[in-house]
Amino acid sequence: MKIMRVEKTLVSTNRLAELGHKGLLVVQEKVGGARQVAVDAIGCVPGDWVICVGSSAAREAAGSKEYPSDLTIVGIIDRWNGE
Amino acid sequence: MKIMRVEKTLVSTNRLAELGHKGLLVVQEKVGGARQVAVDAIGCVPGDWVICVGSSAAREAAGSKEYPSDLTIVGIIDRWNGE
Amino acid sequence: MKIMRVEKTLVSTNRLAELGHKGLLVVQEKVGGARQVAVDAIGCVPGDWVICVGSSAAREAAGSKEYPSDLTIVGIIDRWNGE
Amino acid sequence: MKIMRVEKTLVSTNRLAELGHKGLLVVQEKVGGARQVAVDAIGCVPGDWVICVGSSAAREAAGSKEYPSDLTIVGIIDRWNGE
Amino acid sequence: MKIMRVEKTLVSTNRLAELGHKGLLVVQEKVGGARQVAVDAIGCVPGDWVICVGSSAAREAAGSKEYPSDLTIVGIIDRWNGE
Repeated sequence: MKIMRVEKTLVSTNRLAELGHKGLLVVQEKVGGARQVAVDAIGCVPGDWVICVGSSAAREAAGSKEYPSDLTIVGIIDRWNGE
Repeated sequence: MKIMRVEKTLVSTNRLAELGHKGLLVVQEKVGGARQVAVDAIGCVPGDWVICVGSSAAREAAGSKEYPSDLTIVGIIDRWNGE
Repeated sequence: MKIMRVEKTLVSTNRLAELGHKGLLVVQEKVGGARQVAVDAIGCVPGDWVICVGSSAAREAAGSKEYPSDLTIVGIIDRWNGE
Repeated sequence: MKIMRVEKTLVSTNRLAELGHKGLLVVQEKVGGARQVAVDAIGCVPGDWVICVGSSAAREAAGSKEYPSDLTIVGIIDRWNGE
Repeated sequence: MKIMRVEKTLVSTNRLAELGHKGLLVVQEKVGGARQVAVDAIGCVPGDWVICVGSSAAREAAGSKEYPSDLTIVGIIDRWNGE
């Protein structure tokens, strides 16, 4: 799993129905790093350092085998300094 | 998921029957960046910034578990400045 | 999917029976780039620019869920200048 | 599989129930390298050089097809000098 | 699939029972390159240039859908000069 930081919410009005109403968050491996989009299965706020699961495990972690995710937040790290 | 920009349509006459008539789009992570091909499950136009799902989730997002995709567009981002 | 160029056929006499008699081709993302091996599900010749699907979709694109491929050619691009 | 070194335990109180009580470890491909999180299916201690499996195989290696892991430690290497 | 060179056998006494007695080999994309671990489904010796399959196809190529591999050797290349 990757250690990433939540930057902000991503708004996508025109999206696949299967994405439902789950939050999509912009995450980065480090401040100023490349941005990806993760499905929030936990309830995060910007600034949180989180654990993101990828590969096929991201689907079920987002709620079901049919959920179209390849990156899902599965935990908030208690203490992380962005090292 | 990756944030990518739609550049143009890709024409491939000689292709696997399983690809059907879905649109194949050339996408880039940034203007001038490396090109990949994504299946369009939404209806995009060149210049759109989109959310692309990869891994095994790309198959079902493209319509069925048998669809041969490893990168499928699942949403158009409302506002993105290519940052 | 990746856009790759067919370089040549790869000969591997001692190989897994499940690979069968399908052609294995050496492909590159650009002329002189790193080489990978793709299963040919279309019928390509050296010099063709092709669409390669990876991840779990490569298996079924190569003929069956049991086929041991992680990169399968699913289409020939009509026009591509290696840009 | 990747060869990685166990750095330390990762604490995440607020996490997906499906992660259960398995240990989450911070691992690196080399000392000072980028950090990832792996599920410990063996019983490792900091400093161990381990074999980590990714992709969909990480799920079952962590205990079940439903386990949300994309990186699971499946073995401790007897001798490795971090070469 | 990737083209890799077999360097040596990897010894891991404390490992997941599901790995069984199959050989684990250290492989490199080029001499002196980064090392990974592959399951040997063919019978290779150090110095062989081999075809390695990754992703979910690595599991079944190693013998069964439950086998915890994300990189499995599926063929020996007849002639390769490490180009």
